[in-house]
Amino acid sequence: MPPSTTSTAVPCFPPQILRRNAQSDVILVCEHASNHFPALWGNLDLRPDQLISHAAWDPGALGVAQGLSERLDATLIHATVSRLIYDLNRAPDMPGAMPLRSEVHDIPGNASISRDQRLARAQAVYLPWVNALHDLVATRIALGRRPIIVTIHSFTPVYFGQARSVEFGVIHDADPQLSLAVLGAAKALTRLNCQLNAPYSAADDVTHSLRLHATPYGLPNTMLEIRNDLIATPDDQAFMADQLTQVINMGLAEIQKQAKAS
Amino acid sequence: MPPSTTSTAVPCFPPQILRRNAQSDVILVCEHASNHFPALWGNLDLRPDQLISHAAWDPGALGVAQGLSERLDATLIHATVSRLIYDLNRAPDMPGAMPLRSEVHDIPGNASISRDQRLARAQAVYLPWVNALHDLVATRIALGRRPIIVTIHSFTPVYFGQARSVEFGVIHDADPQLSLAVLGAAKALTRLNCQLNAPYSAADDVTHSLRLHATPYGLPNTMLEIRNDLIATPDDQAFMADQLTQVINMGLAEIQKQAKAS
Repeated sequence: MPPSTTSTAVPCFPPQILRRNAQSDVILVCEHASNHFPALWGNLDLRPDQLISHAAWDPGALGVAQGLSERLDATLIHATVSRLIYDLNRAPDMPGAMPLRSEVHDIPGNASISRDQRLARAQAVYLPWVNALHDLVATRIALGRRPIIVTIHSFTPVYFGQARSVEFGVIHDADPQLSLAVLGAAKALTRLNCQLNAPYSAADDVTHSLRLHATPYGLPNTMLEIRNDLIATPDDQAFMADQLTQVINMGLAEIQKQAKAS
Repeated sequence: MPPSTTSTAVPCFPPQILRRNAQSDVILVCEHASNHFPALWGNLDLRPDQLISHAAWDPGALGVAQGLSERLDATLIHATVSRLIYDLNRAPDMPGAMPLRSEVHDIPGNASISRDQRLARAQAVYLPWVNALHDLVATRIALGRRPIIVTIHSFTPVYFGQARSVEFGVIHDADPQLSLAVLGAAKALTRLNCQLNAPYSAADDVTHSLRLHATPYGLPNTMLEIRNDLIATPDDQAFMADQLTQVINMGLAEIQKQAKAS
């Protein structure tokens, strides 16, 4: 390894990687999989109900992502630390990387973090994540394979007191092709209320992972958002994984058809 | 560190990093600094004159980059292996990453490399480079600083038998702002024949480093190309570093002025 700022001198909370050598070209990415608060930083003075809320993680997203990993035989990389410690879908200079507030929740433990503390969290959580995901992507490319990046998220059904009707959101960054194909497949194959770039879009700076790992290599990519009341239990997560396996496969078939036609 | 494919099991030729804790926000990048051919891969059956030619590296670029690093007090990251082993300004799926041919030179040792050999070179040279540069960039960002990425290259005065009149090329990727400012400064401050996007441009896939490390973070960036007959000796390199120090500083002052005005 090169001389690195993520050496043994600093703590490190690397991501978990499942099915590293899986057959599918899809790489599943779950940045908000965990509501773990390492003892090093404590619980940021949050209440118990906040520690299990959507502010701390994307409830249900990991279960769906694991189900997809199994059904698609796809590699899954997921966070092992709460997004309130460091949000892996944000660059270190974005306010949301270590947020002072999330929706209606103040985050007391993030109110007065020093420059050195911000750096320590980025070094312990963000850099190992980015390097591990980049290794996965670049290694596949070096092998002559073409990775397809699919990020798995969930969102809260009520946001700032407003109910959200969207159930399944498909968000694109610079290249919309796979997102449009997946949206079409979801509308054809499911009864979900499916919407493009909802409940938010790339303009809200939510596509950092896609920008960093897919766009520079010209890789197909999409960000999937599932309303978390639909994936509250393991059974719900398995059912959603069943549906989305078909949706993703149909979306991939569509972009392959488009590639052959062009 | 995370579970990584660049572990101790594979050889590793990491970049060299000079002045890691320098004061300037500029990070100097020299992907083609070296014509070193590690014994692991040998000299790819090239003739002695080819091993020192522009096909193997960018002659003079490292000397200029070191001079700029000293004068600007800027961090410099540079390659330690020939671009013919692995070209660090190319993604692993680009033909130019391990080229079969460079201008008029066939590269015999790259003619029949296997999938596993391609992967081994990417893991030994490309991944450590990318992770080290990313660490530099993301660490600065986490500290609240805004890195400015400047890559330093040289080009041959005669290409496929044609003389090139351009002496100093400034190449941009998605964001042309710094490149335009540097070009204006070079025209104002030097007698060099200065051209934008010459002797090639982003359309030739020569801006991989900028796309991977600057664009996703919205960082100012530019790629500088110097005709190598102008930087053949240490004295020439020092003189060019003197000139480009003024050029870069004037370019940076210009984009700061533009930022304040907007």
